[in-house]
Amino acid sequence: MSEHVTRIDDLPIRDELRGKSPYGAPQLDVPVRLNTNENPYPLPEPLVARIAERVTEAARELNRYPDRDAVELRTELARYLTRTGGHQVTKDQVWAANGSNEVLQQLLQTFGGPGRTAIGFEPSYSMHALIARGTGTGWISGPRNDDFTIDVAAAERAIAEHRPHVVFITTPNNPTGNAVPAEAVLALYEAAQAARPSLVVVDEAYVEFSHGDSLLPLLDGRPHLVISRTMSKAFGAAGLRLGYLAADPAVVDAVQLVRLPYHLSAVTQATALAALEHTDTLLGYVDQLKKERDRLVAELRAMGYDVTESDANFVQFGRFEDAHAVWQKILDRGVLVRDNGVPGWLRVSAGTPAENDAFLDAVRDLKKELSA
Amino acid sequence: MSEHVTRIDDLPIRDELRGKSPYGAPQLDVPVRLNTNENPYPLPEPLVARIAERVTEAARELNRYPDRDAVELRTELARYLTRTGGHQVTKDQVWAANGSNEVLQQLLQTFGGPGRTAIGFEPSYSMHALIARGTGTGWISGPRNDDFTIDVAAAERAIAEHRPHVVFITTPNNPTGNAVPAEAVLALYEAAQAARPSLVVVDEAYVEFSHGDSLLPLLDGRPHLVISRTMSKAFGAAGLRLGYLAADPAVVDAVQLVRLPYHLSAVTQATALAALEHTDTLLGYVDQLKKERDRLVAELRAMGYDVTESDANFVQFGRFEDAHAVWQKILDRGVLVRDNGVPGWLRVSAGTPAENDAFLDAVRDLKKELSA
Repeated sequence: MSEHVTRIDDLPIRDELRGKSPYGAPQLDVPVRLNTNENPYPLPEPLVARIAERVTEAARELNRYPDRDAVELRTELARYLTRTGGHQVTKDQVWAANGSNEVLQQLLQTFGGPGRTAIGFEPSYSMHALIARGTGTGWISGPRNDDFTIDVAAAERAIAEHRPHVVFITTPNNPTGNAVPAEAVLALYEAAQAARPSLVVVDEAYVEFSHGDSLLPLLDGRPHLVISRTMSKAFGAAGLRLGYLAADPAVVDAVQLVRLPYHLSAVTQATALAALEHTDTLLGYVDQLKKERDRLVAELRAMGYDVTESDANFVQFGRFEDAHAVWQKILDRGVLVRDNGVPGWLRVSAGTPAENDAFLDAVRDLKKELSA
Repeated sequence: MSEHVTRIDDLPIRDELRGKSPYGAPQLDVPVRLNTNENPYPLPEPLVARIAERVTEAARELNRYPDRDAVELRTELARYLTRTGGHQVTKDQVWAANGSNEVLQQLLQTFGGPGRTAIGFEPSYSMHALIARGTGTGWISGPRNDDFTIDVAAAERAIAEHRPHVVFITTPNNPTGNAVPAEAVLALYEAAQAARPSLVVVDEAYVEFSHGDSLLPLLDGRPHLVISRTMSKAFGAAGLRLGYLAADPAVVDAVQLVRLPYHLSAVTQATALAALEHTDTLLGYVDQLKKERDRLVAELRAMGYDVTESDANFVQFGRFEDAHAVWQKILDRGVLVRDNGVPGWLRVSAGTPAENDAFLDAVRDLKKELSA
C-alpha cells in the first residue's frame, strides 16, 4: 500500500471544478428541520399501501427495462396539469425525469451547452447556475430589485445585451418566495424571442402554494416556453425525485435526443403513479401549508422582521447584519433553517403547526437575547 | 390555435443534435425478447416481498429528501464487490447513480467535457460515444481487430497520438461479448498515464457472466482507474436503473462536484438494498445463464455460424451479407434479437432454456429457408 492519499486536485478533473464543493444543504439530525422546503406531512397510510402494491407489480418485471418513454406516467401528469393548471395539456407535451434538476439538465444539454449561455435573475434557485456549469453552459447572473422583484426593463436590457440561449424565470422564486407576474414573464419571453430566439424556462416548482395561478396557459402558441414542475413539494414526495415539464411536443421530442435511455426506473414510475392517484388528499395538505405559510409571514412581521411576500411553502425573513450567526443561534435552539447566502436574509420552510410554533418560539427567544 | 406544427428542427437546439434520433432498441411486443441483454428470470417472490417491505418503510419518509450520499447502499455495494471481486473495497471507493449511464455521464462531466476528448475501441457499447456527445466531450473511435479483440499496439498508438482525457475499455465487450485480458487493460492504462494522464474507465457491466475475474484488484495504486458496474444484468434488475463504480476515494469525491443533489431516489435505494440481501439467489441465476450462453455458442457453431467468444450474457453471431434482413426474418418467427449495426453480425441475449430453444429453432428454420 502506498502512503500517498490522492485528493481531488491530484486528479485530472476539469479546471472549472477545482476548489469547488458539492452542492447541498447540511443534512443534520435536528428536532425541527425547516431548511429544504420539504413537505412536513408524511404520505397518508393508504397511499403508502398503494405504493407498495404498485411497486410489487413493478418488481415482478424488474428484470426488464422500464417503459423508456414513461407513457402512463406522462399521461397522468398531463391529466393533473389539465385539472389544476387551467389549461389542456396532453402527454405529448409532458416529459419526466429524476427530479426537476434532471429535467433542467436535459434542457441545457439540448438548448444550452458549450459555446452557449443561460441567464437567471439572482438570487434564485442556485442549481440553475450549477447545472449550467455541469453542462458547459456559460452563466449570466441577471439583476433583481432590492425587494427581490424582477426589474423588467433591466431584465429586458440584459437579455438584449447578452442574447442568452436559455432564460430561467423561477416563480414563485426560491429562496425569496415571491411570484413573478404573468405580464413580466410575457415581456421577458418576447425579449428573448427578439434577441435570438431563446428557450424560456419557467420553474414552477412551488406553484401549487401560490396565491395566483400557474402560467401553463401561456404555453399556447409559444413553442419556446417550458414550464418545469416537481412532485417534491406539493405531492410531499421529495424522496421520490420526480420532476417534469410541460411544453410544445417538439421540446419533448428534442430532450429525448440527450436523455439517458431508460433514465426513469420502473419503481419511480410506479411510485409516482400511486401518488397521482391520491392527488386530492395531497392537495389538502397544500391548503394547510398555505395557511401556515401565511401565519409565519404575519407573526414574523408582528415581531418586526422584514418578510418577503411569499407564494411558496417557505418564507424569507431578515434583515440581519450577520445572517449566518443568526442561523446558528436558531439551530442552537433545535430548529434548522436555511442560510442561502443572500446577505441579511434567512429562509424557513413552512412545517407542521407544531414545527412552526417551535421556530417562532426560537426566533422570539432569540430576539429577546439580541435586545437584552 | 395555430395550424403550424413545430418540429424539432424548428427549435433552437444545438447544431450537433440536428437530424439525430433518440438512442434505444425498438420496444416491440414479441413472444421472445432477446434483444437488450435483460436477465430472463423475474426476481424471486421472497425478494419481491422484501422490496415491498423496504419501499413501504421508505415511502413513510418520502416527504423528506433521500440520503444524498446513499451511504447504506454504497456500503452494501462495497461489501458485494469485496465478496465477489477478489479485492477489498470500501464504501468510500463506491459511487452509485441511476444506471451506469448516469455514472458514466458524471465521469465525463468531471473528467471530459468541452475541449476534452474520450476514446473507445469500437464496436463497443454505443452509449459511451452518445454520452460523450451529450456532455460536449469530443469522441475518438479507436481500432479493434477483425475478430473484435483489441490490438494493443494499435490502441497504444491511438492513445499516444490523440492524448484523450478519458479512455473507455468495455470488458466483457458489448455487443461482441469477448473479454479484454488484464494485461491489455494494464498496457492501455500505462499508455494513458504516459500520454496525459487520463482517466481509464473499465466498463464491467457484464463481468459476473465472465469465465474470468473482475479487474477490481487493478484499482490498487491506480488512482486514475475506474471500474463501472450495474445491477441491470447479474442482479436481474434492469428496471431498477442502478449503476455504480469502484475507484480511488478521490474519484468518488470528484464526481460529487457534478452529480445532481439527491439524484438517487429513496425508492431506488430501498429496492437496491433489498436486492443486495438476495445476492446468492440472484447469482444462482447467473450460473444458469452462463451455461445457456455456452450452449448458444456451441449450437450456433454446430449450425455453421461464426460466433464471437463470449464472456457475457449474450452471443454475437454471423456472418450475414445483410444482417438486418436476417434480423427481420428472425423477428418474423417471433424472436427479437439485436441488430447493433455491426456489419454482418447480430446479437442474441441468453434467455431461459425455452427462449433459447425458440431462438435456435428460428435460426435453424431460417437456415433451411436460406439454403432451400
